[in-house]
Amino acid sequence: MENKQNPIEEFNAYRAKMNEKILSSDNLVLKRLFNLDTQTYSEGVLSTKTKEMLGLVASLVLRCDDCVKYHLEKCYQQNTSTEELFEILAVANIVGGTIVIPHTRRAVEFWEALNG
Amino acid sequence: MENKQNPIEEFNAYRAKMNEKILSSDNLVLKRLFNLDTQTYSEGVLSTKTKEMLGLVASLVLRCDDCVKYHLEKCYQQNTSTEELFEILAVANIVGGTIVIPHTRRAVEFWEALNG
Amino acid sequence: MENKQNPIEEFNAYRAKMNEKILSSDNLVLKRLFNLDTQTYSEGVLSTKTKEMLGLVASLVLRCDDCVKYHLEKCYQQNTSTEELFEILAVANIVGGTIVIPHTRRAVEFWEALNG
Amino acid sequence: MENKQNPIEEFNAYRAKMNEKILSSDNLVLKRLFNLDTQTYSEGVLSTKTKEMLGLVASLVLRCDDCVKYHLEKCYQQNTSTEELFEILAVANIVGGTIVIPHTRRAVEFWEALNG
Amino acid sequence: MENKQNPIEEFNAYRAKMNEKILSSDNLVLKRLFNLDTQTYSEGVLSTKTKEMLGLVASLVLRCDDCVKYHLEKCYQQNTSTEELFEILAVANIVGGTIVIPHTRRAVEFWEALNG
Amino acid sequence: MENKQNPIEEFNAYRAKMNEKILSSDNLVLKRLFNLDTQTYSEGVLSTKTKEMLGLVASLVLRCDDCVKYHLEKCYQQNTSTEELFEILAVANIVGGTIVIPHTRRAVEFWEALNG
Repeated sequence: MENKQNPIEEFNAYRAKMNEKILSSDNLVLKRLFNLDTQTYSEGVLSTKTKEMLGLVASLVLRCDDCVKYHLEKCYQQNTSTEELFEILAVANIVGGTIVIPHTRRAVEFWEALNG
Repeated sequence: MENKQNPIEEFNAYRAKMNEKILSSDNLVLKRLFNLDTQTYSEGVLSTKTKEMLGLVASLVLRCDDCVKYHLEKCYQQNTSTEELFEILAVANIVGGTIVIPHTRRAVEFWEALNG
Repeated sequence: MENKQNPIEEFNAYRAKMNEKILSSDNLVLKRLFNLDTQTYSEGVLSTKTKEMLGLVASLVLRCDDCVKYHLEKCYQQNTSTEELFEILAVANIVGGTIVIPHTRRAVEFWEALNG
Repeated sequence: MENKQNPIEEFNAYRAKMNEKILSSDNLVLKRLFNLDTQTYSEGVLSTKTKEMLGLVASLVLRCDDCVKYHLEKCYQQNTSTEELFEILAVANIVGGTIVIPHTRRAVEFWEALNG
Repeated sequence: MENKQNPIEEFNAYRAKMNEKILSSDNLVLKRLFNLDTQTYSEGVLSTKTKEMLGLVASLVLRCDDCVKYHLEKCYQQNTSTEELFEILAVANIVGGTIVIPHTRRAVEFWEALNG
Repeated sequence: MENKQNPIEEFNAYRAKMNEKILSSDNLVLKRLFNLDTQTYSEGVLSTKTKEMLGLVASLVLRCDDCVKYHLEKCYQQNTSTEELFEILAVANIVGGTIVIPHTRRAVEFWEALNG
């Protein structure tokens, strides 16, 4: 599949391209919110790994596929295991209900791509 | 259109493939939730047909396209008429507002595929 | 408890008082939406009872306590049984997850008041 | 009713007391988010009045009563008329559906207190 | 790209085609809701431009991409400037949080197409 | 304040009373969901403490005050520190936006009661 980007690269490329456009708009509120977003997950009394798991479960129950992908990638970089991932998915599906299932399917597919 | 899956088959195939992966993870909570999901719509004092209509309206106001498709298929199997469908869509759009309209469009398109 | 309104009367009195204020504002869009809301649940190919159950499950998964109370009262008037109510609550909690539980508690409390 | 705070004072007092506790926690992310929140509604190419109306409609469709009260107070300070308010309420109820009605009732009640 | 519809035409064509199907169903509630939706944004004490900005911010915080596109097109027709757009996006992202960011990316992309 | 229940006891008493009524209804789906809810937070590859933090952040972004209180109590029993709590609140407010602030205020108030 040389002529087709993989889903991770595709996701990251679009994200990077559009973030640049948003930040180049010189809207201070958006710029600062983007900065603050990064700070939120920095090492604190809670580890970055724990915070990324919190970001993931929040994204899952709010059913935002792109946010889920972003935090899956971060969780992967923080050495979250597949067994840990499924326990996060379980919390999300119990709290958020079966409407989280379709997002769970796409999350598992992206997780496989990350581990592929 | 021999070389292109129809939207119903495509939806069901992806759903089946990913459900299998989720269930093979051996996460007990997810396994039991999937089981419970099936039990929820079994014949009770309310008929399966009524329960599937309830599942459909809930999916519509929560704006989950895949959940909508799933319950549309179940409603179709329970002999829901197109006139009944539109009355369900009306409740969903009145309770949930015009943000439900785009999901209503996709629901009607999928309903036509089911009846096609 | 003679000097305390019961929860049903209190709910209905506030609802009636504020609806009157909203309708007396002469905002045509709101007036017509209120009218449309009433029409939505009128007898059609689906019975008013079924439509009120649809309205109830939609209100539950969207977690609007006042909307839940309103549709509980309507379901009660349509002779919905307690066993039927619990099957509706089951669908709502499975689709919407455990965040629906606190609303389920208040729904059951209001249902008891209606049946009391 | 000398011995009872009015709803506006009560709302503002609780808000001020708890905001102080949150800000005194020295969590930088929360501090900066609170700052950013204030900046968002400052005069720009859009007036503060328009931005507060945007904040109000967003709070209404997300059905957060306290956020609605906060923006109602700001809209009132920006000389929003009652007729303008009802047009905002109309947009919120059409986009967000009848589940916004209970919040509309409470909004109208608070608006009356502000104008009382 | 002669053989590929642009994203605006594609969006509008699908929207028009499906709206026609929904309206031809003769469901009175849906018909009237569609009518009411149009009336909501007509010139009042608030201008159509202001109302479309309200519709846009509501669609953003409720995270409905198709509703966002629709109101972006209307805002564009009402001569909303790019600087104004970014102030609306800022309100939406502050009120609704970072889960609005992916929708903001797609909104900016569609806005570029409208201005392209 | 001897004649007034404290907020924690009041919350737990109402919760226990209504859960008993729900479970005594003999609706199997609800019974099993309640069971499953308990299992979800049991010790796994993730600790109960981590899972309760996940449940808390999910409840915060979904803005369910009672769910927030429940998980605050569990987090407290798992020796979550106030500094850790504020980092969880920060994630919830960044992901979910300023509409989470009113729930954050009530969460901090309940946390003080737990620590009081």
